[in-house]
Amino acid sequence: MFPKKLTRQVICEPDNPIVEVEGGRLRGLIVEDTYIFRGIRYAEAERFHLPHKPAPWEGVKDAIIFGNSAPEMSTGIAHDAYNVPHYYYPQDENCQYLNIWTQSLDRNAKKPVMVWIHGGGFNTGSGVELYAYDGEELSKRGDVVVVSLNHRLNCLGYLDLSAYGEEYRYSGNAGTADLVAALEWVRDNIAAFGGDPGNVTIFGQSGGGGKVRVLLQTPKADGLYHKAIIESGIHFDGDYTTEVAQYVAAGTLSYLGIEPADVKKIEKIPYYKLARAASKAFADAKKQFPDNDFRWMSVLDGDYYLGQSMKRGFRPETSGIPMIVGSNLGESETNYNHFLAEGSKNSWDDALIRKLMKETYGAIADTVAKAFSHAYPKRNPADALFLDRNHRPGVRHFINLRSKQAAAPVWNYLFTLELPVNGGTTAWHNAEEQYVFHNACYIEASYIPGVTEELQDIMCDAWVSFARTGNPNHVKMPVWNAVTPDHYETMLFDRKCEMRSDHDGELYSIMPIGRRPVARRRNASVLGGGPRQSL
Amino acid sequence: MFPKKLTRQVICEPDNPIVEVEGGRLRGLIVEDTYIFRGIRYAEAERFHLPHKPAPWEGVKDAIIFGNSAPEMSTGIAHDAYNVPHYYYPQDENCQYLNIWTQSLDRNAKKPVMVWIHGGGFNTGSGVELYAYDGEELSKRGDVVVVSLNHRLNCLGYLDLSAYGEEYRYSGNAGTADLVAALEWVRDNIAAFGGDPGNVTIFGQSGGGGKVRVLLQTPKADGLYHKAIIESGIHFDGDYTTEVAQYVAAGTLSYLGIEPADVKKIEKIPYYKLARAASKAFADAKKQFPDNDFRWMSVLDGDYYLGQSMKRGFRPETSGIPMIVGSNLGESETNYNHFLAEGSKNSWDDALIRKLMKETYGAIADTVAKAFSHAYPKRNPADALFLDRNHRPGVRHFINLRSKQAAAPVWNYLFTLELPVNGGTTAWHNAEEQYVFHNACYIEASYIPGVTEELQDIMCDAWVSFARTGNPNHVKMPVWNAVTPDHYETMLFDRKCEMRSDHDGELYSIMPIGRRPVARRRNASVLGGGPRQSL
Repeated sequence: MFPKKLTRQVICEPDNPIVEVEGGRLRGLIVEDTYIFRGIRYAEAERFHLPHKPAPWEGVKDAIIFGNSAPEMSTGIAHDAYNVPHYYYPQDENCQYLNIWTQSLDRNAKKPVMVWIHGGGFNTGSGVELYAYDGEELSKRGDVVVVSLNHRLNCLGYLDLSAYGEEYRYSGNAGTADLVAALEWVRDNIAAFGGDPGNVTIFGQSGGGGKVRVLLQTPKADGLYHKAIIESGIHFDGDYTTEVAQYVAAGTLSYLGIEPADVKKIEKIPYYKLARAASKAFADAKKQFPDNDFRWMSVLDGDYYLGQSMKRGFRPETSGIPMIVGSNLGESETNYNHFLAEGSKNSWDDALIRKLMKETYGAIADTVAKAFSHAYPKRNPADALFLDRNHRPGVRHFINLRSKQAAAPVWNYLFTLELPVNGGTTAWHNAEEQYVFHNACYIEASYIPGVTEELQDIMCDAWVSFARTGNPNHVKMPVWNAVTPDHYETMLFDRKCEMRSDHDGELYSIMPIGRRPVARRRNASVLGGGPRQSL
Repeated sequence: MFPKKLTRQVICEPDNPIVEVEGGRLRGLIVEDTYIFRGIRYAEAERFHLPHKPAPWEGVKDAIIFGNSAPEMSTGIAHDAYNVPHYYYPQDENCQYLNIWTQSLDRNAKKPVMVWIHGGGFNTGSGVELYAYDGEELSKRGDVVVVSLNHRLNCLGYLDLSAYGEEYRYSGNAGTADLVAALEWVRDNIAAFGGDPGNVTIFGQSGGGGKVRVLLQTPKADGLYHKAIIESGIHFDGDYTTEVAQYVAAGTLSYLGIEPADVKKIEKIPYYKLARAASKAFADAKKQFPDNDFRWMSVLDGDYYLGQSMKRGFRPETSGIPMIVGSNLGESETNYNHFLAEGSKNSWDDALIRKLMKETYGAIADTVAKAFSHAYPKRNPADALFLDRNHRPGVRHFINLRSKQAAAPVWNYLFTLELPVNGGTTAWHNAEEQYVFHNACYIEASYIPGVTEELQDIMCDAWVSFARTGNPNHVKMPVWNAVTPDHYETMLFDRKCEMRSDHDGELYSIMPIGRRPVARRRNASVLGGGPRQSL
């Protein structure tokens, strides 16, 4: 629940609001004119098996609280807990739930549908993990149907037991199969919530963007969505191949003391034991396959999931899917390395900035500084210290390929707004979400009176225009051209939005790629919490 | 974090706002004029040992996110999750944290201090578990310093290892020792947050009220607080005696396979294993001592904790502590038994109500109905089906004794407001909290336009008046008399507040005491979530 100051009576009566879906009737809420349905079961699944439709029910089932989040292998206070306010929801393997915000329950309304796929890699998170994800404001402003969802993660979603029998053939993609099941549920039921099953936009951030990329390369998802948005979700990962994934599965069974012939036993092991065994096996695999920078994710089996488009090309079936792809100026560099020196970065003098640039970039410090000031002539040179070097290179590569291989357009953005916390901070990983969802006035670390209201209108309207028509342009922002193989055009979302042409090509041609080590912390600070840890 | 719609820039600069406390400097926030410090470490503790002061630190420590909650033996979606919106925060044994909301950082301001002690028995919960607990509005409206805190719970807070060595002498009261340490921290540091260490009100609900009762009977807490409020925190429990508690500890060691001579090993056992063993041992103890309705709580060792005042009398040292003690009309009967029949209770006809009364009260149904209509002539007779039979009898008994044994006055209230969810619901356990904290406009299930704003002003002002002067009366409400041995006067908080004299004495003389079994659910509903469950 995301409590907001109410001005009207919330409607939650025994028989109102009621919606009929496949399986039975659901009772939701009307909150300040928005219909909200929380915790709708879209599928059920046995552990390591493909999901199936939930059993039908008698009477009315309540859909007024969120459903369980998927179990995480360990959960602690997020490292970025202040900048990115979290909602840590209880976890359970029965986690195939989705939530809906809509302005209409008219079956003929055919509003655009926006399905949010949460981040946290393929490992952690939920559809309600961040306050930014709350769909009420986006639904209201855009008159769209917003859906968020939970699905199986980590070893429950992506442990590849295919070597142990046909029934586990897709266990390495079970978490993605949940996503497909959710999109099938949307196709079959969203009209009852005023939505158009023929106009579904999937959008996600970080791991959620990674999942959008996976769905593009998953034949079973074809036809279930029509537009796609990837926010800060592209970097250069290795593939989680069947070879690697089966190695992890074999190690997990071994740590659990389960013989291959008794593989069925793994379905009944308590999750915390399974997670510990899988973690150890995963660490072993990292040593066994040191050249492959894999993570928990969909297994590249060449059947359910066909592998990264950046390596294997885009499937022609997705050629007609328009896309928005972008990232933020600082991303994780801001999150982890903010306290390079005392005080606010905006109070540092030239000598200190030069010293820190040297420490950060070594021999190429001057070249980076020059290229940065060329790309961003009006910014504080200190911002170069917090420049993303992980997402933006991936985005540039991805979009370039996409513009060559697909018929539908792709638009690129950078979220560059300087945020006010600590006297000024470059935009971090996750910072754009509250602007997209029109929730930015609720987030302490990023609210700038006047500026925030205007920019969230612009960004929210762009996402909604895209969901509505396949083109993000609207009258309140400058013209935003799609990228072509010859023109790399980027919309910079900032106090003053601006479209620029290949403005950072030179900069990224010299920037080192990949996240750099975490800098020393200023002091005994717990800013942003500690590492995630288990009990 | 409880995101609210912001209208001003939040101040969170490297050097502002800073407060100096024992040990070092802290950096907090200024949110719409309120100073907020989250996650201040008030103590540290080794497992099963008494808490001690945190080590001093260099530089500035951040206090901008909440600290860890104490580990719960199992955590799932709360059964009352819709009516009582929860914030489920990450858990860790390092949990001795408190949060402060204040309007001033002037050391000489001497504002009243209100220390909130959370509920969840002595077993679950945290200082941020419910949205109702957020201290910003209460601090602002009352110009008071609000403190909320976390402390050790369940087997970490109350496992009695005293049989195994002097170093564990107080392990059965470690969780209460954390509360005492927090109050000592308040005494030593709250002036820096504008608070008056000589005017501290402790207030809590449910288990939090139980903890207030325990503190009254804990000599170490004497002088650390000056006023006390118990909301829905009195019922007839057994004592958790040393005999019972040592039996639980012995069983726990046994399930863990730890010999008494190796007792030190229990300090290093992973929590989830400890919790499983302790749960089993606790269940065994329930069988061994069937006549004692004990729970996890402070061990009655006659040294640290002196036992329930209702059985052993109030300690004369507490005679000068003014108190407010009260409960809600429905309490758990509303939470668990709402769906006795189809539709809203307010749509049921007389025949149906009579039938349900018969099912609920058997032979005394007519007598209860008559006494109920005598106590509450204007209420729907159906409300008698959801009448609390657990807290109110305890409150009546407790207050009667207190008025006889203490010099300071005690005031009694009943929160009787009918809440709008499901077409009308009697006030449930926890329902008054958002009114006390002036957060009721944020809670979906209980917001009634116009009514809520007025009643939360009245209740919040009464609590603040009490914290300020020791007397809850203020000009916006009817005169509220303290209870005397001869006059049992109760303030009914409702659309129209009203003081009544022994209005339900007859009713409770015939009501069965103790919670009744949970009624059948209407349907496949997940209203209010399922039982708490572990992974």
